[in-house]
Amino acid sequence: MPEPTLDVTGWTCPAPLRETPRIVMGHGGGGALSAELVQQIFAPAFGGDILAQLGDSAALTLGGVRLAFSTDSYVVRPLFFPGGSIGDLAVNGTVNDLAMSGARAAYLSCGFILEEGIETSVLARVAEAMGAAARVARVEVATGDTKVVEAGHGDGIYLNTAGIGLIPADVDLRPQRVVPGDVVIVSGDIGVHGVAIMSVREGLEFGVEIESDCAALGGLVETMLAVTPDLHALRDPTRGGLAAALNEIAAASGTGIALQERAVPIPPTVSNACAILGLDPMYVANEGKLVAFVPRAHADAVLDAMQAHPLGAGAAVIGEVVEAHPGMVVAHTALGGTRVVDLPVGEQLPRIC
Amino acid sequence: MPEPTLDVTGWTCPAPLRETPRIVMGHGGGGALSAELVQQIFAPAFGGDILAQLGDSAALTLGGVRLAFSTDSYVVRPLFFPGGSIGDLAVNGTVNDLAMSGARAAYLSCGFILEEGIETSVLARVAEAMGAAARVARVEVATGDTKVVEAGHGDGIYLNTAGIGLIPADVDLRPQRVVPGDVVIVSGDIGVHGVAIMSVREGLEFGVEIESDCAALGGLVETMLAVTPDLHALRDPTRGGLAAALNEIAAASGTGIALQERAVPIPPTVSNACAILGLDPMYVANEGKLVAFVPRAHADAVLDAMQAHPLGAGAAVIGEVVEAHPGMVVAHTALGGTRVVDLPVGEQLPRIC
Repeated sequence: MPEPTLDVTGWTCPAPLRETPRIVMGHGGGGALSAELVQQIFAPAFGGDILAQLGDSAALTLGGVRLAFSTDSYVVRPLFFPGGSIGDLAVNGTVNDLAMSGARAAYLSCGFILEEGIETSVLARVAEAMGAAARVARVEVATGDTKVVEAGHGDGIYLNTAGIGLIPADVDLRPQRVVPGDVVIVSGDIGVHGVAIMSVREGLEFGVEIESDCAALGGLVETMLAVTPDLHALRDPTRGGLAAALNEIAAASGTGIALQERAVPIPPTVSNACAILGLDPMYVANEGKLVAFVPRAHADAVLDAMQAHPLGAGAAVIGEVVEAHPGMVVAHTALGGTRVVDLPVGEQLPRIC
Repeated sequence: MPEPTLDVTGWTCPAPLRETPRIVMGHGGGGALSAELVQQIFAPAFGGDILAQLGDSAALTLGGVRLAFSTDSYVVRPLFFPGGSIGDLAVNGTVNDLAMSGARAAYLSCGFILEEGIETSVLARVAEAMGAAARVARVEVATGDTKVVEAGHGDGIYLNTAGIGLIPADVDLRPQRVVPGDVVIVSGDIGVHGVAIMSVREGLEFGVEIESDCAALGGLVETMLAVTPDLHALRDPTRGGLAAALNEIAAASGTGIALQERAVPIPPTVSNACAILGLDPMYVANEGKLVAFVPRAHADAVLDAMQAHPLGAGAAVIGEVVEAHPGMVVAHTALGGTRVVDLPVGEQLPRIC
């Protein structure tokens, strides 16, 4: 794969954004505005080295044991969508964040914020979906909390999960370990979750129903680590899509990422829906996919193992890590050109998770 | 202390409640309705033995290490109140839940759900309060997440924290360990947090400003465990107040609790405010107090140690655990009578934490 020819002299990524006096939807979108909140407000207020790693989960040591610890809140609308529900998302999202550290999720907490007046049966359906997803992911919901806010506040159900899991001793997955020469592998079709949410929320019909790819990736990651514990980094491209995940890795590792745009697996249903809606699939959220940065020597074996796993059947090499254009993601287009794949500012479609 | 003379033949506690088709404010109040949600919806959906312990935090083993794991969401209104803020509550509340397992909190996660349009400076103040509280409690905020919901949804800031900490090898704090003969000790004045919130929310003036008792109790618990690791159970009487905490312990241990009502420390400001508002201080929330169930042989020494600690200066023996009236809390009143202190159905005042 040749180095990109784009001249990026003097380009900075991400462009510094003005401080905003009020919170906008984009602050929750997983893009540049979200990063700005962390860098300008949370990191200075909280201090600490672990938060500063800015991984999907924190890697820490407690009682001599290496743990991954992660949290996500879920505000998806609608609560139930093709292929899943807020309950599935809340389990799989946190399980996946732990898996991106190489940890098998062991225990989850769950915090419900309920709106007065919602039907108890709706809550029960969400809880049952959580329980079923937890059994599939082999994680135990160990502790929880419920708060209720007045009707008109809140929004039906908001849900938070936090999770902990053990990181194997020989595993060290961090963006900082990514180096030029690493092969970039995605585990399957991208853009499916965001399009599934959009189709049901906006009442759009695309001929076929598009189901969310929501799934727990702990088993796939175990399969990959069985090939070699020496993977460099993993990300699940959720909010902000594959573009945000790749940009975060590029920024944190100080490397460039060169993509072959044609190699990125995008199903026709997603590309058609995105064409109608004016969206770029690279920025659409996924909930059951990962992107892996693998040393070249292990790439073929890791790809084979992924493709043999049900959740990695569509895995594909989509690019490589390069020394050129550090901090930038550059795509080689089907027509032979190159384009910069920016960090999104916010999220094209809010409240997809 | 004599056994209570109240005839409780045929009494059941808590009285079974009708299934409610919709969520009401009381489902978040930490009383009987909250317990019903856990028993009827969450426990069956999630399964698992740890959740079934129904402690303030889950005690679990991971990688051979004993951990406490807990979560709480915070929806307090207003966000800032005399003596604290939602940020202080979110740190101290979870630190305290861990401390009730005997664990010193080590790491916290935090999940923000922000309403579009809130001022960034308000978020910054909350984050700074969290950071300051975390430094006092010697706990590190290790991982976080931010979601934004549209203006008119959400409610300014909702906040979730989860926490993990190590449980010392010789410590085993569980309601099930409480036995007749145990001495019941409270660490200081009760009812202060709830009255502080109420005074500012309702614009009431009681002559003197009442400040929340919001504080991290990890250090006090360490002081108590240094006297003897053989404490039987600890609870922080938050939502539902001292009454809910005592009823939970009585129900889980199958013992009775006999209180000396006059011995319960209630400051005049709280009793006056409660008299005006028609509230019972036993049901008003605390955020910096604990109630301890201590074997009689250690009670004096534990009480002395508590009183020597800044957060236990007002500690007092308030009653004992008895064989009579299992599952019930009975108070001996100042006038020589007895009354049953019921599990509250909901919370007298919603959204105090």
